[in-house]
Amino acid sequence: MPERQRFSFSIAATDGAARTGLLSMKRGDIRTPAFMPVGTAATVKAMKPQGVRASGADIILGNTYHLMLRPGAERVARLGGLHAFMGWDGPILTDSGGYQVMSLSELRKMSEEGVGFKSHLDGSAHMLTPERSMEIQRLLGSDIVMAFDECTPFPATRDEAASSMERSMRWAKRSRDGFDSGLDHASVSALFGIQQGSMHADLRQVSAQKLIEIGFDGYAVGGLAVGEDQQEMFRVLDFAVEMLPADRPRYLMGVGKPDDIVGAVERGIDMFDCVLPTRSGRTGQAFTRQGPINLKNARFAEDKGPLDPSCSCPTCAGWSRAYLHHLIKAGEILGAMLMTEHNLNFYQAMMADLRAAIGEGRLTSFADEFRRQYRSIRDEAAD
Amino acid sequence: MPERQRFSFSIAATDGAARTGLLSMKRGDIRTPAFMPVGTAATVKAMKPQGVRASGADIILGNTYHLMLRPGAERVARLGGLHAFMGWDGPILTDSGGYQVMSLSELRKMSEEGVGFKSHLDGSAHMLTPERSMEIQRLLGSDIVMAFDECTPFPATRDEAASSMERSMRWAKRSRDGFDSGLDHASVSALFGIQQGSMHADLRQVSAQKLIEIGFDGYAVGGLAVGEDQQEMFRVLDFAVEMLPADRPRYLMGVGKPDDIVGAVERGIDMFDCVLPTRSGRTGQAFTRQGPINLKNARFAEDKGPLDPSCSCPTCAGWSRAYLHHLIKAGEILGAMLMTEHNLNFYQAMMADLRAAIGEGRLTSFADEFRRQYRSIRDEAAD
Repeated sequence: MPERQRFSFSIAATDGAARTGLLSMKRGDIRTPAFMPVGTAATVKAMKPQGVRASGADIILGNTYHLMLRPGAERVARLGGLHAFMGWDGPILTDSGGYQVMSLSELRKMSEEGVGFKSHLDGSAHMLTPERSMEIQRLLGSDIVMAFDECTPFPATRDEAASSMERSMRWAKRSRDGFDSGLDHASVSALFGIQQGSMHADLRQVSAQKLIEIGFDGYAVGGLAVGEDQQEMFRVLDFAVEMLPADRPRYLMGVGKPDDIVGAVERGIDMFDCVLPTRSGRTGQAFTRQGPINLKNARFAEDKGPLDPSCSCPTCAGWSRAYLHHLIKAGEILGAMLMTEHNLNFYQAMMADLRAAIGEGRLTSFADEFRRQYRSIRDEAAD
Repeated sequence: MPERQRFSFSIAATDGAARTGLLSMKRGDIRTPAFMPVGTAATVKAMKPQGVRASGADIILGNTYHLMLRPGAERVARLGGLHAFMGWDGPILTDSGGYQVMSLSELRKMSEEGVGFKSHLDGSAHMLTPERSMEIQRLLGSDIVMAFDECTPFPATRDEAASSMERSMRWAKRSRDGFDSGLDHASVSALFGIQQGSMHADLRQVSAQKLIEIGFDGYAVGGLAVGEDQQEMFRVLDFAVEMLPADRPRYLMGVGKPDDIVGAVERGIDMFDCVLPTRSGRTGQAFTRQGPINLKNARFAEDKGPLDPSCSCPTCAGWSRAYLHHLIKAGEILGAMLMTEHNLNFYQAMMADLRAAIGEGRLTSFADEFRRQYRSIRDEAAD
């Protein structure tokens, strides 16, 4: 078997702005558009890796912020890296820690150097810089490393957005240098830059240009899914995506709801991650092609039917809505397990359908039909 | 394929007081001595039924008290019974609710008729009698129904023990009549009586005699594992077990620790149930042949070895002690899943070894070696 290459991205078909293709890396191929389940603390919550793989996931995401604090990046390295540690042998993308250090940590102090903070777990003091973020992601053994940036808060004034973006671009260069200095790791992994600029087209353009000058394997759209509504997110994507190189994968960070993903794919996005399918699974919300339903709702208490009649996942094949309702009401771990497994399968089946639709040049009709069906049932409040 | 019989118990080999054999029922065979994982609320916590089966379990236990309150016995019946509801197609033994109504419910009022109480979940009023317990277990579709009794509190005066036992024997007769009145269910399921009498040989003898006069498919030793130490439990088993018919399965309710089970098998017990492997799995305790270990302990933080090197379960094959330590410290659901799966596999492997040892006439040497190894490591306090 020929040795696998470090990184290649091939587009098999396009349909409007949308593309479908293959991202090939040392640890495996990633079919795009791809959804990456979030494995924050070295586990996709309530799932064994085998179940994640069986759902159709080619790649998962790990969180630098969480892992640096517990169990610690150096410890993960001593234990053979994140893949061996958690038993996932496919590609892993790690974020830079930049987003979560701002949303989760305590006593943050931000400077040009980076972000000093105290752990939300034990109050211990830490410093996250572009260089340290690259080092942590290297220690974890990440396949796709994200540049360290600041996710510009929303809303922000134009001046705030510009100044935040400029700093992120300086940090992007330091990330590139830091990544490249880890020769062994850089020879097997990839580095993605992150476009900022809030909701402003001119700032997004400046950011894209600076990233392209530095040069990255892939490009993320950052600073979205931060509180703006879907219409506003799509408005930004309408100009932001085409600023990024067409021959490189484009990753929309932290997105999103199923209809967000469909709209973003139509606008040329190739990669997604979101906690929604896993987190919702633990709170009783299930995704179906007709929209989300909350299994806590009393109307499911004697519903013998499967969660989603059109789904072929293990949960839908094996158990009724009534049983899931019972498990969730009783706070049973198996409820979280089965719901998470369904939701991950739902997301991956949706991605597979999107890839097929693009490949066959019928994305618009697929997306229109998806939107027509989705939300055709109401998500009733839990009783 | 010939139709399976309602109930038969065949002893393949004996070794001292111990026996190994097969309990055959409509829904499958149960190899004895057998350990029944506890599936309180229609789920063996943190496990899919497939994993329970793969661990080697032939039968699981369901709790009448929990199921009558949530989701409710009539509801389970409308949903096709407990087996269809939870996706377990093997035999299920249900307890009578008698033990848990006394330990979990509120505002109990006990009379000759039964026990009136309020639900610990929502304060709703309920009444549990021998007749209602039989009805509930029939609605659930139980394969092995337990007579409704009072688990005599410990310690109890001799008079209290005698009076409690006498009432349980009157309830045993009402249970028999109630069970037999459900003709369709009685033709496919079995009814076990429960010996009481606290720690007194003469009361145990009276109880056994009354149960035998009524006539049951199997006989349980009740009123043990209620706070007495292992030495006292074994002292009672030394006289209580032989009072029960040798050609019927004998079930020691709520037991127990691995060394409790080994000692009870040596004394002629065929069936066990206990929450220990599942509950311990959720709190970081793992069973090994060298004794229990607590994976929360800091000494496991960088231990690359499997939880139990001599174990072939999925957890030990796939992940390190360091990873389990991390999951448990982080409160991850996957920690509960993997630890529970190991503990259930540990219990079932121990039962398989006990069956083999009895079959080959070497139970004494197996049990002595088991005890020599077990507790050879110390269970250190969690850090």
